[in-house]
Amino acid sequence: VSITKAELKTVKSLLTGKGRKATGRFVAEGIRLLEEANRLAFLPEQVFYSVDLLGERGDSLVAKFKRRNVNCQEIAARDLRSMAGTQAPQGTLGVFRRPQTELAELYHRKYRRLLWCENIADPGNLGTLLRSALAFGFELIVVTGHSADVYSPKVVRASAGSIFGLKIALSNNLDMLDLVRRNRISLVATKAEAKGRDYSLKKVFENAKLVLAIGGEAEGLSSDVTERAEVTVNIAHSKKVESLNAGVAGSILMERIYRYDKERS
Amino acid sequence: VSITKAELKTVKSLLTGKGRKATGRFVAEGIRLLEEANRLAFLPEQVFYSVDLLGERGDSLVAKFKRRNVNCQEIAARDLRSMAGTQAPQGTLGVFRRPQTELAELYHRKYRRLLWCENIADPGNLGTLLRSALAFGFELIVVTGHSADVYSPKVVRASAGSIFGLKIALSNNLDMLDLVRRNRISLVATKAEAKGRDYSLKKVFENAKLVLAIGGEAEGLSSDVTERAEVTVNIAHSKKVESLNAGVAGSILMERIYRYDKERS
Repeated sequence: VSITKAELKTVKSLLTGKGRKATGRFVAEGIRLLEEANRLAFLPEQVFYSVDLLGERGDSLVAKFKRRNVNCQEIAARDLRSMAGTQAPQGTLGVFRRPQTELAELYHRKYRRLLWCENIADPGNLGTLLRSALAFGFELIVVTGHSADVYSPKVVRASAGSIFGLKIALSNNLDMLDLVRRNRISLVATKAEAKGRDYSLKKVFENAKLVLAIGGEAEGLSSDVTERAEVTVNIAHSKKVESLNAGVAGSILMERIYRYDKERS
Repeated sequence: VSITKAELKTVKSLLTGKGRKATGRFVAEGIRLLEEANRLAFLPEQVFYSVDLLGERGDSLVAKFKRRNVNCQEIAARDLRSMAGTQAPQGTLGVFRRPQTELAELYHRKYRRLLWCENIADPGNLGTLLRSALAFGFELIVVTGHSADVYSPKVVRASAGSIFGLKIALSNNLDMLDLVRRNRISLVATKAEAKGRDYSLKKVFENAKLVLAIGGEAEGLSSDVTERAEVTVNIAHSKKVESLNAGVAGSILMERIYRYDKERS
């Protein structure tokens, strides 16, 4: 039941953006998240667990990882607390290789609905958008601007593990706009401001590929994106509220598109 | 530019549930939140500000409060940091009286759409639900179970100030179910699980009053509530995700009801 100080230090470094960048790894802590990783077949490189903290459900999860030949290492509870950066970890933590998804995956015809997150700086909002994206069939995500780090513990937690089921490309506005134009993809920009009426999305739904772009809470989408959008959509709401939460606005639109696609199919 | 130690201690105590309960007060920190309070005419009892931290926008806000006869007191930056519980406050903080909304307000015919939050323990989710509720015309909120404290700084922040425009009753399941039954209000329960199809809400929309009940992330609504519901609604989504975020699920349904109401009117 031991881990070297150097190993511990490396895993702890994954709590920081610098550490994740240097190693190309990230962590997910807790039984629910690791169950999702297992269910979505995104296996960790290594699993640490502490029998003192692990209940029956955790035991069963670790056994599953062992059967799938994942390197599982028992460590002391205090070491697990230290690497999880929390006083009350759920007894297990996984180290994952950060996948590299290229924007070129966009060419694949299986990705019909894409989500573009521009400047989604709040980790909770970014995680919520990822969770809703997987729920509503937006399986390729493009992240640009000063968005939160997709692989930070807060985003991973807020995504409720959906991060393990998505393709996520970290890119920039120029490359993304270039790709959208060259492929004649419908770019749908969203506005979170109150407006009297809803815009109809039906016209753009017909297109084979659609990119829904969501901007940051404070500033909305940048003009780079809105100027190139085929259509701008808005969710009608009471003027008593200045704007919707970015995670909510994106989720409402993805759900509407998902429902419309299902009705047509 | 000073505040007594005793005053500072009292305001600082509002960062805790105990302090809020003892005093019947709560705080909101930052320019955006206080602008919303001003816009929604929910005035603070007292405003503290520090000229060293306040920009032009903050100056203008404090001037507005002064014109509305709000007691505004200049204090040192270090005292503001201390009472805000953050290293980087935006230069102003308001102390508000916690309103007491009785469940009996439900009888008022102006409240046609109500939101019931049961066991929404995550402050971010509760705040998001409040923000969407005001956006989509659900202006009476009932909070029961082990939900987060509506007046905690995290919920106030996540609500983006919508808390200042809502009527919020803190109650319990028994009283709420009693009221629903005696008033023949349509109780709509939500399920966040994946299902193949959407349930139609149109039938219950016709009712004059509708209560949409949202349960906690982990456990969903309690059987107390689901057993008494007139209808249970579910948002169809991919099975790749176990469930939607509770804030997102509630927001999607409120938006759908709001849109349907608008189409009919």
